[in-house]
Amino acid sequence: MDAQAELTRRPIAFAGSRLDRADHIRGDPEAVTRLMDRHARLLLLDGLEPRLDADAALVWGTLADAAPDAELVLLGLTEQGHARFVAAPPAGAASVSPPNPRLWQAISEIPAQDLAVYGAARSMAGWHARHRFCAMCGHPTVLAKGGWQRNCTSDSCRSEHFPRTDPVVIMLVEHEGRLLLGRQPRFLAKRFSALAGFLEPGESLEEAVAREVFEEVGLRVGTVTYIASQPWPFPSSLMIGCHADADSTALTIDHNELDDARWFTRAEVVDAMAASERGELGEAFGAPPRHAVAWHLLDWWLKR
Amino acid sequence: MDAQAELTRRPIAFAGSRLDRADHIRGDPEAVTRLMDRHARLLLLDGLEPRLDADAALVWGTLADAAPDAELVLLGLTEQGHARFVAAPPAGAASVSPPNPRLWQAISEIPAQDLAVYGAARSMAGWHARHRFCAMCGHPTVLAKGGWQRNCTSDSCRSEHFPRTDPVVIMLVEHEGRLLLGRQPRFLAKRFSALAGFLEPGESLEEAVAREVFEEVGLRVGTVTYIASQPWPFPSSLMIGCHADADSTALTIDHNELDDARWFTRAEVVDAMAASERGELGEAFGAPPRHAVAWHLLDWWLKR
Repeated sequence: MDAQAELTRRPIAFAGSRLDRADHIRGDPEAVTRLMDRHARLLLLDGLEPRLDADAALVWGTLADAAPDAELVLLGLTEQGHARFVAAPPAGAASVSPPNPRLWQAISEIPAQDLAVYGAARSMAGWHARHRFCAMCGHPTVLAKGGWQRNCTSDSCRSEHFPRTDPVVIMLVEHEGRLLLGRQPRFLAKRFSALAGFLEPGESLEEAVAREVFEEVGLRVGTVTYIASQPWPFPSSLMIGCHADADSTALTIDHNELDDARWFTRAEVVDAMAASERGELGEAFGAPPRHAVAWHLLDWWLKR
Repeated sequence: MDAQAELTRRPIAFAGSRLDRADHIRGDPEAVTRLMDRHARLLLLDGLEPRLDADAALVWGTLADAAPDAELVLLGLTEQGHARFVAAPPAGAASVSPPNPRLWQAISEIPAQDLAVYGAARSMAGWHARHRFCAMCGHPTVLAKGGWQRNCTSDSCRSEHFPRTDPVVIMLVEHEGRLLLGRQPRFLAKRFSALAGFLEPGESLEEAVAREVFEEVGLRVGTVTYIASQPWPFPSSLMIGCHADADSTALTIDHNELDDARWFTRAEVVDAMAASERGELGEAFGAPPRHAVAWHLLDWWLKR
């Protein structure tokens, strides 16, 4: 079985952008300025939400659409070498608010390429909006390197800051052919998904998987297997999808984290995934949405 | 072949701490205070460098050794339920300077358990030292949740900040049985190691591997396989070790990133790894040090 081949049959949401990130250009301010030409386009956002046309495609304007003092982030170059930018929104709570409910609805309709470009743009624009000041000294920062860095403006500090990406482990836990899935309080009725949590400084991803599973449901896990990853732009995570074998089925659920956690049979997972293809809930539970890496983990589990 | 079993034969440096991170306690300020009892110990650091005893073990003091106004981070609990803390150093460049050369020397001598505890402590202490101000608004921040969070003190902001971990992809690139390794300018003479680079917002780890390889040496890669991960506390990375198949051997080296990159035969890698066991350089090149995840990637490649 080639897990990678299975996974590429249906692209993972927010991955697969074809823009060239053009890392070699970012460090050359004159080259970045030269790219701000008549071929350049600006991704149009409302706060961090995408504007979509009738086909649910992203809407692009020209650089003239940006506010005069807007900070422009070079997202990358098209195959024709034309630059694509996004403007960092002004600082403030509104600009970095959680995703609009309409966005979750729209995600299944936005073309895969556009979704990938939007995800990167949202993460970067949100990072700038949340990092207008230096965490080292409190002085204002300014955009640098085409938007892939911010520099402190204080002469005695001059710290450089880089976009952050938070690794999250998300894992299928298995015991003798049954799969453990959990419900977070915010989930829609009957929905269950893979357990997940942020990786912390000082642990490998295998250790983070074991810690999170123990914290959330009290199980000890053995072998941890990596399956797939996904960039997740709310605000800027790397979802690292794994499979872990548990040594028992006795659960001690942390109800601060989870409403519920249950073991499901293969037949129940088959049914839930088939129902999700019809936009329905399965008999035993509702599968995670297809834009979540958890959907791919379940798909991988059924097909391996 | 069980790659995981091979990897566990020799522990990955900075992983494998047995301290219980006690996540459920962090959010309860009274419980954290109760842990500051006569059983509690404080990791003694000089800046971010470890103090070591004659056996190269970490040196622990009591909480009375901390400055009166020091911010204390709960590293975790021992098996006896005793708390272990580290004090965040004062802000300022000195406290977050790069590792002291003596540390690199000492890493091979520090017991594995101590190295894991030190790595987490260094990442956390460094994070606090670099985040005394709110990146959203520039106001001072204060430690919260036993040191696993900082909160903005401005009533109009109240942002919460979390320790950051930067995912880095590090990869063996293979073509028809030969392995591509590169030299960074800072490497000791004759040393070669796996290519590596930071993952960016908006890309999966497989995409980050492909981008970094193309940027650094101009090769296109196909299947990417995850091998192992390592927490790397300089300052706070997650090294994600992978293998990637390249579609050719023709290199276009980015000399801003690399001094050199070359293809090595299996025999040359065998020789370099054997030489490194004797503390020597191989005929063709010097292997990466054993505390680097790259050493484990080469070990995995030879044994698979």
